Amino acid sequence: MKKSLLSVVMLMEAISAMASVGITSPSGLLRIDVDVDSAGTPVYSLDYKGKQIISPSKLGLNADETKFTDGFTIIGTDTCTVDRSWQPVWGEYSNIRDHFRELAVHLKANNPERVMTVRFRVFDDGLGFRYELPEQEKNNYLTLRDEVTEFNFTDNHTLFYIPGDYDTDEYLWSETTFKEMPEALGNYRRHSEAQRAQGNIIQTPMLIKTAGDTPVYVNLHEAALVGYPAMLLDVDIDNYDFKSHLVPDRLGVSAYLQMPFATPWRTLIVSDDARDILASQLIYNLNEPSKIADTSWIKPMKFMGVWWEMFTGNVKTWAYSDDYLAKPGITDYSQLKSNGHHPANTENVKKYIDFASEHGIDAVLVEGWNEGWEDWASYRKNRQFLFDKAYPDFDVDELREYGKKKGVKLVMHHETAANAADYALQLDRAFQFMKDNNYDAVKTGYVGAIIPRSEHHTSQWMVDHVLDVAKRAADYQIMVDSHEAPRPTGLCRTYPNWLAQESARGGEFESFGGNPPSHTTMLPFTRLKGGPMDYTPGLFQTDLSYYGEGKTSKAGTTLARQLALYLTMPSPMQMACDLPENYERFPDAFKFIEDVPVDWSDSKYLEAEPNRYITVARKDKYSDDWYVGAITDDNARTAMVDFSFLPVGVKYDVTIYEDAPDADFRTNPQAYRIRTQKVTSKTKLKQPLAPGGGVAMRITPIK
Amino acid sequence: MKKSLLSVVMLMEAISAMASVGITSPSGLLRIDVDVDSAGTPVYSLDYKGKQIISPSKLGLNADETKFTDGFTIIGTDTCTVDRSWQPVWGEYSNIRDHFRELAVHLKANNPERVMTVRFRVFDDGLGFRYELPEQEKNNYLTLRDEVTEFNFTDNHTLFYIPGDYDTDEYLWSETTFKEMPEALGNYRRHSEAQRAQGNIIQTPMLIKTAGDTPVYVNLHEAALVGYPAMLLDVDIDNYDFKSHLVPDRLGVSAYLQMPFATPWRTLIVSDDARDILASQLIYNLNEPSKIADTSWIKPMKFMGVWWEMFTGNVKTWAYSDDYLAKPGITDYSQLKSNGHHPANTENVKKYIDFASEHGIDAVLVEGWNEGWEDWASYRKNRQFLFDKAYPDFDVDELREYGKKKGVKLVMHHETAANAADYALQLDRAFQFMKDNNYDAVKTGYVGAIIPRSEHHTSQWMVDHVLDVAKRAADYQIMVDSHEAPRPTGLCRTYPNWLAQESARGGEFESFGGNPPSHTTMLPFTRLKGGPMDYTPGLFQTDLSYYGEGKTSKAGTTLARQLALYLTMPSPMQMACDLPENYERFPDAFKFIEDVPVDWSDSKYLEAEPNRYITVARKDKYSDDWYVGAITDDNARTAMVDFSFLPVGVKYDVTIYEDAPDADFRTNPQAYRIRTQKVTSKTKLKQPLAPGGGVAMRITPIK
Repeated sequence: MKKSLLSVVMLMEAISAMASVGITSPSGLLRIDVDVDSAGTPVYSLDYKGKQIISPSKLGLNADETKFTDGFTIIGTDTCTVDRSWQPVWGEYSNIRDHFRELAVHLKANNPERVMTVRFRVFDDGLGFRYELPEQEKNNYLTLRDEVTEFNFTDNHTLFYIPGDYDTDEYLWSETTFKEMPEALGNYRRHSEAQRAQGNIIQTPMLIKTAGDTPVYVNLHEAALVGYPAMLLDVDIDNYDFKSHLVPDRLGVSAYLQMPFATPWRTLIVSDDARDILASQLIYNLNEPSKIADTSWIKPMKFMGVWWEMFTGNVKTWAYSDDYLAKPGITDYSQLKSNGHHPANTENVKKYIDFASEHGIDAVLVEGWNEGWEDWASYRKNRQFLFDKAYPDFDVDELREYGKKKGVKLVMHHETAANAADYALQLDRAFQFMKDNNYDAVKTGYVGAIIPRSEHHTSQWMVDHVLDVAKRAADYQIMVDSHEAPRPTGLCRTYPNWLAQESARGGEFESFGGNPPSHTTMLPFTRLKGGPMDYTPGLFQTDLSYYGEGKTSKAGTTLARQLALYLTMPSPMQMACDLPENYERFPDAFKFIEDVPVDWSDSKYLEAEPNRYITVARKDKYSDDWYVGAITDDNARTAMVDFSFLPVGVKYDVTIYEDAPDADFRTNPQAYRIRTQKVTSKTKLKQPLAPGGGVAMRITPIK
Repeated sequence: MKKSLLSVVMLMEAISAMASVGITSPSGLLRIDVDVDSAGTPVYSLDYKGKQIISPSKLGLNADETKFTDGFTIIGTDTCTVDRSWQPVWGEYSNIRDHFRELAVHLKANNPERVMTVRFRVFDDGLGFRYELPEQEKNNYLTLRDEVTEFNFTDNHTLFYIPGDYDTDEYLWSETTFKEMPEALGNYRRHSEAQRAQGNIIQTPMLIKTAGDTPVYVNLHEAALVGYPAMLLDVDIDNYDFKSHLVPDRLGVSAYLQMPFATPWRTLIVSDDARDILASQLIYNLNEPSKIADTSWIKPMKFMGVWWEMFTGNVKTWAYSDDYLAKPGITDYSQLKSNGHHPANTENVKKYIDFASEHGIDAVLVEGWNEGWEDWASYRKNRQFLFDKAYPDFDVDELREYGKKKGVKLVMHHETAANAADYALQLDRAFQFMKDNNYDAVKTGYVGAIIPRSEHHTSQWMVDHVLDVAKRAADYQIMVDSHEAPRPTGLCRTYPNWLAQESARGGEFESFGGNPPSHTTMLPFTRLKGGPMDYTPGLFQTDLSYYGEGKTSKAGTTLARQLALYLTMPSPMQMACDLPENYERFPDAFKFIEDVPVDWSDSKYLEAEPNRYITVARKDKYSDDWYVGAITDDNARTAMVDFSFLPVGVKYDVTIYEDAPDADFRTNPQAYRIRTQKVTSKTKLKQPLAPGGGVAMRITPIK
């Protein structure tokens, strides 16, 4: 497989221009064809089960120095078939098959001479392709303005998407046809600090459900986003076409490149069975194997957090002081007066540690522990946060020793206020401080407008920065959970210490008006394809008016559904987001959170329809237990749980955490029941789900 | 002296609007008057010896959020007199008097309410003033667009200046009147990678020589540039006025500020004796005392460098490989083939160490030791240089041990290719690598366009970055010599490990067409007022055609003048720039470089005229020896050396390194003579200087 790009191209130079070329997936389900049109522009098309999914669509890159868009002839091709498997450090499967046929199309143009390879990998569940620019004869530097990759669909399909934005992905999902898109996008107000892309522009990952009686589902995203900006999609609603829209920096440049260079893979996960979209490991397969040799220190975890307290009302604060309320802007931190409602204090953190220790929760995240929150979003300072300077009421030494004694780790929080430039300057010191104090996981945050001020959250420089942070963390054997970072593209395969990211509208929005139940039926089809999400499930007190602090937000969920999310939103860094006192009110339900693993040897998607429902079974990586989770949208539903995934002849006890018959996320979210029954591989269970509800099951072999 | 800004302002609120206020310098030589005009704009004027130097000139700051430009009344003033002295870690003097009268003018405006203090310190050799924005009642964040400080002169004076530029100061000096400025600026082509400010815009430090029979010299610059962009000057040639022009970032913002905040000091060094301009320590006095408590590790040094070899012709390279010549852009450094003419190799560095050890030179700088030079100016890479990855022919371990054995330090080179963002990410590792390998000084470089791409070399972010680097270096007890950094403003008082900067057209230009002799008669009047320069004197082989490698450049200097520069361009980090083999050809002349100190207890400027000549005497800090240096422009001159600076009654031997009678920088630069004579404090010596020549003297008491 490993050949020098250059030598391949040289070899092919002698060959005269070729006709169109094509390749099928190993089983023949998918087929791509590649050609150059009359202008010498490379085009590709995609068939699935003999039907055209993508009509001829242009390929190319457009730089100030050179255009790789037209004048090309195909001067050669390479093909090969690969069938191999690999074992992730953590994930939904303990073994992943990487099975594809590859077609590398070598292109050449003259005046000036340019060579480019487009490499396709066609799997039975989709494909990826990328541009490879080998070393050129003349100029090897590019100031990239544009990538002109098209994805031309053929009908007014149904689309599932969030608005295009250079800085954030924390949106709710729209489900519309191409034609209906402008109205849906028009409903979004501009994000206050972000730069929403104007026009019919959406983000990846997004999902397409083709029109017609036998719909095909297509997840469109990218894999291995390294040294390149994130991709948005310009949508031509009249012709049903998408075109890549690279996130530019604030000077209007998409990427500064040096050849040889390969772009990220443009990925299409394709199936007429929606469950296959969820099961696909295609994006991971298109990423490089782990670059971390010793991964023994990478440990999936459940964690709680001094965090939700700040979302339950207006009183608890990340900031130690309220001085900033009277007067915006604080510079003299030595003068701060305690506001008396700062949860990141030693005593309170100890309570969380105690609770975590008693309930087998591995770690406690503490937000608001370090100086800087009084004016954290100022965008005016060269330095906002020091990552080794705690507030006076947070005793790092005492908590280090207390955590050790109780066998509970602390997770550090590095909110950067989006000053990535300054975070870089502090990074080694911050990580050393963590190691010195027994922290081995960090949640990073980039809230606000990015510094360096030339950058967006998803422009090339920030893509590099966030990966640099994950790599540097690995040097210190630190695990990373990135928030407000570019949406994931499977890089956690290559850097498995990068356990999770936010990169979508997460559970925190349950306190800002709520997430509709359908939201978590979309995320696994889209956002999760690139990597796990720190969604923060486990919300038991779903009605925030409970706190009597002016909040009226109601979460779009039943309590039982929150347990199901541990299965439908798998993550090796999984939160139990609610307050200890709320868990103490529902200890039988909390038992599921105590029990549920965060790492799996196998997963079976039993039912799935985007924006509607998901039912999934997963096998614990370290026992013979299985777990099932099912969720629905705001409609009640009966999930069909076919236990045929269990080994034949073994009997199991099932503990079922379900919505009570009168449960409803709107009116009675905390009504749940716990019951047990026995099952075998022959059992088929009709499991009712309340509106906005869900079910979680623990399935234990009977000894 | 230390009062809370806020409390002062509060105190003054009760006082009704005041009439104009004024203050004189301690001896009464200078006087400033401050008032508000009919629009409520603060104005100041400056008199020197009873004559107006600066007519009423506006003061103010202009931000998106608030304008601090008009509507003001004076609500109070504070005055005080300070007379104190301090002892620098190194410098031209071992004791510096800081003697001034201070006037703080407290201003208030309504609708919206704004408070501002303008603080003036008036010394007998000039003044500084700055804006202080205390915490405001409402908004405390500023997005600064403009500072409207005016310096309104009164006649068509002679000006000495270089063009305004956001990215570089490596220009030759113009000497013109206001009226002649456009023609002089028009002669400069745009710097290839920098963004030259368009229009009649010049940089500070610059010098004014007033018109008339009794000219007054005024150096205009700034002190303590921290958290703010560098200042250029917009010039109104019709009205003889300057107005501050802050360097913006590429988004057009000058500074992001949070109050309370104090700007840098705007400084005017004023005297009718040009020698006072050279002697003035005003800019240092306006900087904070050392923030480094233990300065015992800061050691002024002389150093040589594997460096000039790369300037003598087209053959020797920083790069290890020539592959980039055939094909621009290299990414795979593991494949490099040695070009055989890479001076930063172990064997060659040892030769320099040997020479330095034999001749009492403290250290050897090595440029081109680390990977990345093959495409170092690409501006395309996230990472250009690794600061702990040597080229294969540079053996870090072997040279560490060899240097230790020989008692010679190595100076590390950190060329960043202007990727300051990535340098920040590597900084701790780079400095730790230095300490691990016995380096305690670094030369930093920022050649090219800055990354972060929002920034210029002298915009606010880079000002912060370069100071951050100096501070971080101090944490590792590392001394810093910054190249391509914002021009210095006396911060080396506060951070005395920041030994030197380039920040002007240095000796390297002798290989790019040469520096005219007048250049080094200007730098001490301008550039050097902010801090020492790594000018790289000591060039003995001044005609580069000597190397027979296509170079024809001739340096604008005689050999003797090069020795004089060690006195006229004082620096605690002073290079002997030429090749060991050239020094071996002139061992008697090199003896002066061996002997000359780099740290002084006293300095006496004997003669001076900008752009013409300088004669200075300095006393060694660690012996009773004195040294004299004198230089002229391209005209021959007779320097008058009045030895009355010597203690009365002591006899001295003087060794004089002078131009030979037939010396001329154009035709016979290497003609020098060394002679000795005896002197006392009564001696007056007429010392001929050749065109482009100079003289250096070592004066030793006869025991």
